[in-house]
Amino acid sequence: MELNRFEKGLNKLAEVDGNAGEQVIAALDDIAPDLGKYIVEFAFGDIYCRETLDLKEREMITLASLLTLGGCEAQLNVHINGALNVGIAPEKIIEIFIQCIPYTGFPRVLNAVGVARKVFVDRNIRVAKINS
Amino acid sequence: MELNRFEKGLNKLAEVDGNAGEQVIAALDDIAPDLGKYIVEFAFGDIYCRETLDLKEREMITLASLLTLGGCEAQLNVHINGALNVGIAPEKIIEIFIQCIPYTGFPRVLNAVGVARKVFVDRNIRVAKINS
Amino acid sequence: MELNRFEKGLNKLAEVDGNAGEQVIAALDDIAPDLGKYIVEFAFGDIYCRETLDLKEREMITLASLLTLGGCEAQLNVHINGALNVGIAPEKIIEIFIQCIPYTGFPRVLNAVGVARKVFVDRNIRVAKINS
Amino acid sequence: MELNRFEKGLNKLAEVDGNAGEQVIAALDDIAPDLGKYIVEFAFGDIYCRETLDLKEREMITLASLLTLGGCEAQLNVHINGALNVGIAPEKIIEIFIQCIPYTGFPRVLNAVGVARKVFVDRNIRVAKINS
Amino acid sequence: MELNRFEKGLNKLAEVDGNAGEQVIAALDDIAPDLGKYIVEFAFGDIYCRETLDLKEREMITLASLLTLGGCEAQLNVHINGALNVGIAPEKIIEIFIQCIPYTGFPRVLNAVGVARKVFVDRNIRVAKINS
Amino acid sequence: MELNRFEKGLNKLAEVDGNAGEQVIAALDDIAPDLGKYIVEFAFGDIYCRETLDLKEREMITLASLLTLGGCEAQLNVHINGALNVGIAPEKIIEIFIQCIPYTGFPRVLNAVGVARKVFVDRNIRVAKINS
Repeated sequence: MELNRFEKGLNKLAEVDGNAGEQVIAALDDIAPDLGKYIVEFAFGDIYCRETLDLKEREMITLASLLTLGGCEAQLNVHINGALNVGIAPEKIIEIFIQCIPYTGFPRVLNAVGVARKVFVDRNIRVAKINS
Repeated sequence: MELNRFEKGLNKLAEVDGNAGEQVIAALDDIAPDLGKYIVEFAFGDIYCRETLDLKEREMITLASLLTLGGCEAQLNVHINGALNVGIAPEKIIEIFIQCIPYTGFPRVLNAVGVARKVFVDRNIRVAKINS
Repeated sequence: MELNRFEKGLNKLAEVDGNAGEQVIAALDDIAPDLGKYIVEFAFGDIYCRETLDLKEREMITLASLLTLGGCEAQLNVHINGALNVGIAPEKIIEIFIQCIPYTGFPRVLNAVGVARKVFVDRNIRVAKINS
Repeated sequence: MELNRFEKGLNKLAEVDGNAGEQVIAALDDIAPDLGKYIVEFAFGDIYCRETLDLKEREMITLASLLTLGGCEAQLNVHINGALNVGIAPEKIIEIFIQCIPYTGFPRVLNAVGVARKVFVDRNIRVAKINS
Repeated sequence: MELNRFEKGLNKLAEVDGNAGEQVIAALDDIAPDLGKYIVEFAFGDIYCRETLDLKEREMITLASLLTLGGCEAQLNVHINGALNVGIAPEKIIEIFIQCIPYTGFPRVLNAVGVARKVFVDRNIRVAKINS
Repeated sequence: MELNRFEKGLNKLAEVDGNAGEQVIAALDDIAPDLGKYIVEFAFGDIYCRETLDLKEREMITLASLLTLGGCEAQLNVHINGALNVGIAPEKIIEIFIQCIPYTGFPRVLNAVGVARKVFVDRNIRVAKINS
């Protein structure tokens, strides 16, 4: 039986964000449940389930966009975890942030790296040092 | 003989942006030549020459960041051309923009797709229609 | 028979934006048809069809958000027309922009008023002068 | 006797923000008293005292603008309280944020809803669940 | 006789922007005259007339802020002219933009330099080349 | 012997930021050492060492840009300290923020002043009250 958008979205959310994503949705339940419904249905059910880009590429794009927005440290936290979950190495996550420097300047990149530090500590991850 | 940062940057700029990138630098020569020098040395010589991410991934990240910034249509034009130059299919460029919708909303994505339309027309490119 | 999200969205889009909205969607057909589909289904079918706020309130909020984003003059054009279509007086549209001054500063407000000028000229509208 | 801009502003500030607004102004007294003076005189004395839009509409616009700016959680806190003070129902405040989704994407909306949660807890407010 | 805020503002506006500033205000007269009134009274009458920073420093700060906002090319045009009017050398204007690179990235700086080019051409100004 | 870019940058970083700047670089050592290297080499070695603007002017521009970006409170903290270190009076720092009001609106200025308050408390600084 074919899944509806919400079910497809829930599955994709679990695949990318594991528990953290479900927690974001659950935390909305008492204040803005429809916001959670739209994130599941539209962001994950419609967008993340599309072809042409794989999950790693989608997380890479999402991280670049969240860094550039500024002020989205909570979402960067969820998606740095998501990037690790779909198999992007920690060194590659840092490299995604470094790639943004010419386009956003250093402050936004520093703030994103600061979030990555917290996530890596939480997950007991050591970053292999990349020196050019 | 090892190339200096400027020479490495010029080579990388040519590899990614072909003529368009050199035109940006040349256009700066009479007003802010050092700005052009820093773009070549730092953006291309230092950042684009790094390991860990290939050129296609770097252009993908750059496009996501430029879209999110807003107001950077001139730079989106250069980098949509750059993405095509390094072998990213037009359908994939559109997909990168679509991936940003949940993070930036529709206006910024519409504006980026508008720039892509102009680039594709200039380069006589037809986008294979992707319907989900 | 109950309409699906796309049909509900098309109806709402026509109600708010008349021809202009349909033109935005049609213009996407050869380059990013799914982007148009999501705007119709999600922005108009899901969000604009909701209860609790009427169409005038929704357009008021949309105008404030587009002004604040900056660089979204094309979308401001569509929604200034939309605001007029749903019955918001031109003087009220200008007042919405003026209300933003303490939060965004003058440049973004000047740019939005500039778009309003073009729309009012196109639609042969004279703004009743509001002096405090 | 006619009030001057500062007095009109203080009255309007009290009407919208009650104690919270006065606290923002008072907190500036030892570091940037003129900043507080301009907020009272210009934002509240000039802008908020204008005709054509009522206080509820002004708070609606202000909330949309603050959400879209990003990084203005402190001001969102003051104005979510202000919106409640002028009689906007909590469900309507959430709906204002939901209306922004197509224009700002989900992160900025999530961050604004997060501030609303804290305000509602502080004020012992339960949001009537709105499901579409 | 002491000038009121509007008169002080008009004088300051003329001192900084010459004709260009008056044109911005005049152009608002048929659509949003109060917006023009607030720019004269508040931006120029209150803020620009303050002590502690001279006009050159104020224009320097304004240019940095407008560059960083993005999408404010019209206002950058007015204030690059204003900076020249108050005696900031063209080379110094370019240097102000270059100083922003580490904080905003290259795109916003390129766009500001693009506006400067147009202003310098209009005013027949040649920039003395600054090479480091 | 002539210093290389990194050494020039370290010297300039110490001159502007004293210990705080070195701490930012050191804190990056275990997660993104190249990010620290680029800040030292490019931001301080290339940009801050340039002619045409002195250190006070550079810090003034940096503060205006960081305020306008929003969400860069950590960097504002470093550079408010930097501004004090290079001899900009606390009253002048506040005035730089006030100058931004017409261009960014009040929220971003309030947030910057909030960071200044913390820095002044940490450094036992009392601001001479400037009333207009």
